[in-house]
Amino acid sequence: MFTLQITPSFSDTDMLGHINNTVIPVWCETARRPIFELFNPGLVADQWNLIVARIEMDFINQIDFKPVVEVKTAIERIGNSSFTVIQEIWQNELKVAIVRSVLVHFSYKANKAVHLPQDVRSKLVPLLQS
Amino acid sequence: MFTLQITPSFSDTDMLGHINNTVIPVWCETARRPIFELFNPGLVADQWNLIVARIEMDFINQIDFKPVVEVKTAIERIGNSSFTVIQEIWQNELKVAIVRSVLVHFSYKANKAVHLPQDVRSKLVPLLQS
Amino acid sequence: MFTLQITPSFSDTDMLGHINNTVIPVWCETARRPIFELFNPGLVADQWNLIVARIEMDFINQIDFKPVVEVKTAIERIGNSSFTVIQEIWQNELKVAIVRSVLVHFSYKANKAVHLPQDVRSKLVPLLQS
Amino acid sequence: MFTLQITPSFSDTDMLGHINNTVIPVWCETARRPIFELFNPGLVADQWNLIVARIEMDFINQIDFKPVVEVKTAIERIGNSSFTVIQEIWQNELKVAIVRSVLVHFSYKANKAVHLPQDVRSKLVPLLQS
Repeated sequence: MFTLQITPSFSDTDMLGHINNTVIPVWCETARRPIFELFNPGLVADQWNLIVARIEMDFINQIDFKPVVEVKTAIERIGNSSFTVIQEIWQNELKVAIVRSVLVHFSYKANKAVHLPQDVRSKLVPLLQS
Repeated sequence: MFTLQITPSFSDTDMLGHINNTVIPVWCETARRPIFELFNPGLVADQWNLIVARIEMDFINQIDFKPVVEVKTAIERIGNSSFTVIQEIWQNELKVAIVRSVLVHFSYKANKAVHLPQDVRSKLVPLLQS
Repeated sequence: MFTLQITPSFSDTDMLGHINNTVIPVWCETARRPIFELFNPGLVADQWNLIVARIEMDFINQIDFKPVVEVKTAIERIGNSSFTVIQEIWQNELKVAIVRSVLVHFSYKANKAVHLPQDVRSKLVPLLQS
Repeated sequence: MFTLQITPSFSDTDMLGHINNTVIPVWCETARRPIFELFNPGLVADQWNLIVARIEMDFINQIDFKPVVEVKTAIERIGNSSFTVIQEIWQNELKVAIVRSVLVHFSYKANKAVHLPQDVRSKLVPLLQS
């Protein structure tokens, strides 16, 4: 598991005074950067080999503007060509959201899913949620 | 069912050349406006009475920058205090994403779910997906 | 001059209850699409030939969530390789913001500004603000 | 002067492969948080007393996705009721953008500018760019 601290931006709030729900996928994408680097260390566009197939978000508590937020990222499932990232968002020691993202190892040239390479798989395994 | 046409913004694209997945919840929220108006005709902050509890997004096809996008919005389920909005995103007569959002009729003052009022429920029923 | 109507998204608001200032450049970029098409009719990434050098925004009135917004776009100045787009944002027949964007005709391969081609210049001239 | 480090999000990129210009005002707003706290230590909505009157952005170099970005924030000018924040964005020891934001000490109830209080002014002075 790895953790990213995020300072909410004022523009992340909405007129209800809390963080808008559409901000959560952005924070989670930012926090998935170390996983992107396992697949594409240079984070270079023409070698990108992941695509998002599905995202599930559960909003548990309202998120405030002021306190820093923590995104905890782990792997929940490893399949043949896809895997599921599980992310928890915490604020003030309260779990405020859970996000599951299904990422597919993908060839943008062939436009199809590709089996996970063994070397990347072996780096994902230690990240499996215990 | 109602439909909203959206012109993608250049900033909605990412370095893979397609629309970034984090844009989908924003488009869907924009397209839920007529539902917000059923609950709060003036769309006024201090009478807001909905909160998002869960969002599921399935990304079916990549979305391009150029063609206009259509968001089709209907109701999938009506519960006691919550209901599920189902939204399909179409581009070039291709379904590119399906989004389900669980919205809860909510009192921000009492900080709890509230039963759906009968008059609003009767306006949601005709929107149920056939 | 051309006009684009935009329906604010709920996520465009901030905790002051109005539209957040960071939304304005997004709306203006969306409204510049017809200008992008003068330079690159297919709106294709590998033929993109414009870059933004400067943006000035004057915020005149607060912008509300409910009413539709109009972005009026014209050309203020045409130089050798750059030009200035002027955009006014209106809501409820009130001018709420003025945005000036300096766009440069740019070669991403050579990484330098390029003179405006005569055929594009002749399409910009009719858009000059009177 | 104070400095904020920001890790670009994948959604901050656009189809040209760099960071989209509309992201800059968001980063700058995030980096102005310590200034917001001078005016409103609790960062509470109903005591908010600042409004943005004008933003000028000069884009000097393209911004990449991978390297961390630094936003350096200082005060350029202090007036009677307004002041100008100057922010430089740096990446890889290269200045990539300069942003000037005119903020007005503002009463949302009276809907008008209000003189800067002496105690806040005295906290802004040490932030004046040398």
